[in-house]
Amino acid sequence: MRNLKLTFEYDGTHFWGYQRQRAGRTVQGELEAVLSTITNSPVTLFSAGRTDSGVHSAGQVANFKTETCLAEPVLLKGINSLLPRDIALQSIEEVSDDFHARFSALSRCYEYRIYNSLRKTVFNRLYALHIPQSLEREAMSEACEYLIGERDFSSFRAIGDVSTHSFRRMIKAGGRSQGEVFVLFFEANAFLQHMIRIIVGTLLAVGRGNMTIAEFREIVLACDRSKAGPTAPPHPLCLTNVRYFE
Amino acid sequence: MRNLKLTFEYDGTHFWGYQRQRAGRTVQGELEAVLSTITNSPVTLFSAGRTDSGVHSAGQVANFKTETCLAEPVLLKGINSLLPRDIALQSIEEVSDDFHARFSALSRCYEYRIYNSLRKTVFNRLYALHIPQSLEREAMSEACEYLIGERDFSSFRAIGDVSTHSFRRMIKAGGRSQGEVFVLFFEANAFLQHMIRIIVGTLLAVGRGNMTIAEFREIVLACDRSKAGPTAPPHPLCLTNVRYFE
Repeated sequence: MRNLKLTFEYDGTHFWGYQRQRAGRTVQGELEAVLSTITNSPVTLFSAGRTDSGVHSAGQVANFKTETCLAEPVLLKGINSLLPRDIALQSIEEVSDDFHARFSALSRCYEYRIYNSLRKTVFNRLYALHIPQSLEREAMSEACEYLIGERDFSSFRAIGDVSTHSFRRMIKAGGRSQGEVFVLFFEANAFLQHMIRIIVGTLLAVGRGNMTIAEFREIVLACDRSKAGPTAPPHPLCLTNVRYFE
Repeated sequence: MRNLKLTFEYDGTHFWGYQRQRAGRTVQGELEAVLSTITNSPVTLFSAGRTDSGVHSAGQVANFKTETCLAEPVLLKGINSLLPRDIALQSIEEVSDDFHARFSALSRCYEYRIYNSLRKTVFNRLYALHIPQSLEREAMSEACEYLIGERDFSSFRAIGDVSTHSFRRMIKAGGRSQGEVFVLFFEANAFLQHMIRIIVGTLLAVGRGNMTIAEFREIVLACDRSKAGPTAPPHPLCLTNVRYFE
């Protein structure tokens, strides 16, 4: 059996999330269907991240075991030609038998894009949150520093999350400006359900001047979902990269 | 009566073209409906360009006469809040009574975006044509020079076009690279129906090495639609700007 690692991107707009479901169009479902066709055998994917409905990816990773003899370049071209236009396979490579896209991952990197301008525009509406009011970007970036480290992230955990515990290790968190777009970035070993979206919903209160950095820190330490802000919308969120040992 | 000039952008993906029709969602139709609501009176727009179904704009211009007393900043905010997310009003200003968005225009500027890379990507699929095969960009840019000047553009005119004549003045035409994206740009006093898309369909033959620059020039001079290439798809085309006397 070969173990194949896939790296791919998708536009989450028209998917009911990443994970396969009984009904509804999902990224995993579409990809597994194409892989089953091309390898002529049922395929089950193991995936690094299960993104919410509406969330995009520029570097999702998954792997599957297969008996196919087709070479990687042939698979890459064939899979891309069968995939819909909103999923694109970037690379495919054979990896060692013990590689597991989910359990071997060291960290996941996400970006949340805020279009911070008075001017309405149509061209980034699927990939950025429009906030006309000027945000205090430095305060938001500074608040992010209190997220870094091994912590209990209960304050930023969806009510329905079924994770066994709420400790995660945040490796990077901050903000960077690209003109009118303010990008919040997060890298952690793993994330709780809705964790980034709740963090962003809370950071926006800081950016709007409705919450001090000290108050944000208290919320991080409180381990109480009811203290944090609302869950920000999914469409400005993108899984940009998953890291593994080389 | 005040004469108001609007500058606005739209994503053409979900419109049946610019021009109002009896049935089907159009940019003009949506905009006139919002203007009629906010001014409390029926509005008819005069517009600089009537873009095809699927074509975008980053700088369409229109004007209308109105009795409304609302100030421009109030109108700008109100109109944008009522418009759907795929139309955005950039500016509104009062102009002299004889300004007519269509007849006063000196020229229209368009761009056609080609994503020229082996790699499939999802994020520009609504705004660029994906050509995996490497194009001879310099030959395409050079061929464009034969389009410049006051000419009969019959070779690049849709069969159903009802213009009274096929002479147009091409002011600029060429290509510029933005990494993997190759942008063809065109500025003319006006364009025939499908003119840019037929020109691009013909230039692509040059870029693929299937047509020489000399052959392209012969097609320009032939004034015969059957000699030119196919009509390229609409979604990579964008009306970027309309010029007027200051």
